[in-house]
Amino acid sequence: MKNIIVGQSGGPTSVINSSIAGVYKKAKELGVNKVYGMVYGIEGFLEENFIDLDDYLSNEENFELLKRTPSAFLGSCRYKLPKVEGNEKVYERIFEILDKYEIDAFFYAGGNDSMDTIKMLSDYAKENNKHQLFVGVPKTIDNDLPITDHCPGYGSACKYIATSLKEIIRDNSSFPQSRLTVCIVEIMGRHAGWLTAASSLCKDDNCEGVDAIYLPEEDFDLDEFLNRIDKLRKTKSSIVIAVSEGIHLKDGKFVCELSSGDRKVDAFGHKQLSGTASTLASIVAEKTGLKTRAIEFSTLQRAASHLSSLADVNDAINSGMKAVEAANEGKNGVMAIINSDSSVDTYDIHDIANVEKKVPLKWIDSKNKQMKKEFLDYARPLIQGELLPIFKNGVVTHLVRK
Amino acid sequence: MKNIIVGQSGGPTSVINSSIAGVYKKAKELGVNKVYGMVYGIEGFLEENFIDLDDYLSNEENFELLKRTPSAFLGSCRYKLPKVEGNEKVYERIFEILDKYEIDAFFYAGGNDSMDTIKMLSDYAKENNKHQLFVGVPKTIDNDLPITDHCPGYGSACKYIATSLKEIIRDNSSFPQSRLTVCIVEIMGRHAGWLTAASSLCKDDNCEGVDAIYLPEEDFDLDEFLNRIDKLRKTKSSIVIAVSEGIHLKDGKFVCELSSGDRKVDAFGHKQLSGTASTLASIVAEKTGLKTRAIEFSTLQRAASHLSSLADVNDAINSGMKAVEAANEGKNGVMAIINSDSSVDTYDIHDIANVEKKVPLKWIDSKNKQMKKEFLDYARPLIQGELLPIFKNGVVTHLVRK
Repeated sequence: MKNIIVGQSGGPTSVINSSIAGVYKKAKELGVNKVYGMVYGIEGFLEENFIDLDDYLSNEENFELLKRTPSAFLGSCRYKLPKVEGNEKVYERIFEILDKYEIDAFFYAGGNDSMDTIKMLSDYAKENNKHQLFVGVPKTIDNDLPITDHCPGYGSACKYIATSLKEIIRDNSSFPQSRLTVCIVEIMGRHAGWLTAASSLCKDDNCEGVDAIYLPEEDFDLDEFLNRIDKLRKTKSSIVIAVSEGIHLKDGKFVCELSSGDRKVDAFGHKQLSGTASTLASIVAEKTGLKTRAIEFSTLQRAASHLSSLADVNDAINSGMKAVEAANEGKNGVMAIINSDSSVDTYDIHDIANVEKKVPLKWIDSKNKQMKKEFLDYARPLIQGELLPIFKNGVVTHLVRK
Repeated sequence: MKNIIVGQSGGPTSVINSSIAGVYKKAKELGVNKVYGMVYGIEGFLEENFIDLDDYLSNEENFELLKRTPSAFLGSCRYKLPKVEGNEKVYERIFEILDKYEIDAFFYAGGNDSMDTIKMLSDYAKENNKHQLFVGVPKTIDNDLPITDHCPGYGSACKYIATSLKEIIRDNSSFPQSRLTVCIVEIMGRHAGWLTAASSLCKDDNCEGVDAIYLPEEDFDLDEFLNRIDKLRKTKSSIVIAVSEGIHLKDGKFVCELSSGDRKVDAFGHKQLSGTASTLASIVAEKTGLKTRAIEFSTLQRAASHLSSLADVNDAINSGMKAVEAANEGKNGVMAIINSDSSVDTYDIHDIANVEKKVPLKWIDSKNKQMKKEFLDYARPLIQGELLPIFKNGVVTHLVRK
């Protein structure tokens, strides 16, 4: 491979830059000449908005900072590549650019929608006898990519969620039962409850854990929810409940829609969800008279790299390295995957793109609204170890594009 | 002093337990027999709900864990001690209990309302020839206690706010200008903008900083705010604005009241504020058509002890130690104060209780909605150093009451 290019797409994570670090590292080990970064994903690619990663990463201190920098260092996008039919010019333009810069392999770190881009480009290359290779690098805090045991970005988000919930539970336990507060914490996850399930990880010998966990994998029953609170308030002086932003009633209506009308729709046609916790907090306050508080982890759960899991950072680096290795072996239309023992491999992108992996129902203790041991055994290894941030003048330091 | 007792009151912080650690440490150095902790502050005191701190803190590992445990280890309360006149029985009961347990000094870690308790009890003791001493230990993330240069709890909250904002700014900068998002971050502070001012601390050579800061010390002008966003959107691909929960219009109406009717009132008659960021985000979305996001740091800004400032932890320990030293010297009705060089002293509680210290207007750059150098010089030392958390199985560990 003479030159290669790497891009980032979709919602950022704490470790998406570690994937880039892995791609760069392996490429340099293999003697690749230029490692380009596309600024703002495929959208920037089409405008030839490139940087040369040597300008940043040949310096070892910067390399270490990149691993500690959240969000997309290269810039991200939510550009949905159109079907080939009727849009041939877009595809021709992409290969023109690749030829112009003598780029032999194209790496894209992203989630479901980004893997669809890899699928379409690799299919096009094969059908049109182009030599360029297209390889996906998994990235999503949502952990909803299939085949791979887990996704880089998920472990750090879990560590943030478990740590922050532990702190919230301590905070909420400050006051006597007469001042009982029901705290409802909203965690990202539209259809898959992986992130919300991570709330179970805060429970240990010095933390009682969350009192209930509601995932979008199961229909939400408002009566069951209110009855549960009614039971809990009789014995507890603090109630903390974790809910996924995407929980919905049996008829499919999102819980957040109980308080507000129509929801906006994003570029991929997904409804924008938020306000699930505040909707529930209002309902609880009204029905029970209890003091309530709604907390949303919002973007911090995907951006708090000061709490990155070292296991997750290593998975991100290793999957980036594996993607380059695969291209070097001539593989096209594959994604790097991570096995449960953290070893890495590759897999056909056609089995991955647009498939959403949900939390297995058998891992959910529906009766007690808790996660079963199977989930804890699955997720616990993903939050092990810390990559300590580098503080300067009291605040964490990042690497940013000039 | 034979025995002493210590309590915690008001909203918890990341380092309020370090103050207790300081009280315990100095008391043991001075040969105090029993160091009692009142569970749930004065409310628990009246029920003789005590623990013996030796049961927890004679173990050095626990002592280290206590310094890393957020929220009130002893439990807190929001009990407002009534005036003596007409409530003599409450006061008599308090001194009966003190006599019963042979307690010579009473320490209370808290903010404005808690210092009022110290004032009333020390005044009562003096007027009624009681030998017991009452000493305050400053505690508030709000930093609004007078006389003391700064308050334990504030520095760690600043460190959390600056670090989290830096991560949010990175996250919000991921996408190209065509997907510009206006992110409005709501920070605690009813009347004093100290915490919101700390948003200025994230700006450095690898962070552009927040685009505007709105404190409750100045009237909020909605037109100015919308004009500012209109200017910013022309040049920026990310806009992040920090607002205090307590910002209000010229007529005194809180910004959060623009979208919702009457607000609930807490035990001290304070209006409960929240939803300032979401109110503004809705207004901006409606008026400009831009994508907006509202983030509330909520309780995490006072509970995220995994990001504690070492300078703050040390201030908390030293002020706890100073309070005990003062009582040992026979001082009554004083609060430990911290000077700008972090040396500690004590001061007459009458000059402190019920006085609220605001951010000096001369430290605010009203035109650019930023903090001036004077504030940065004041606050920067307060976030220096880290007290690294102790991780167990991937999650932070705390010390909890049995």
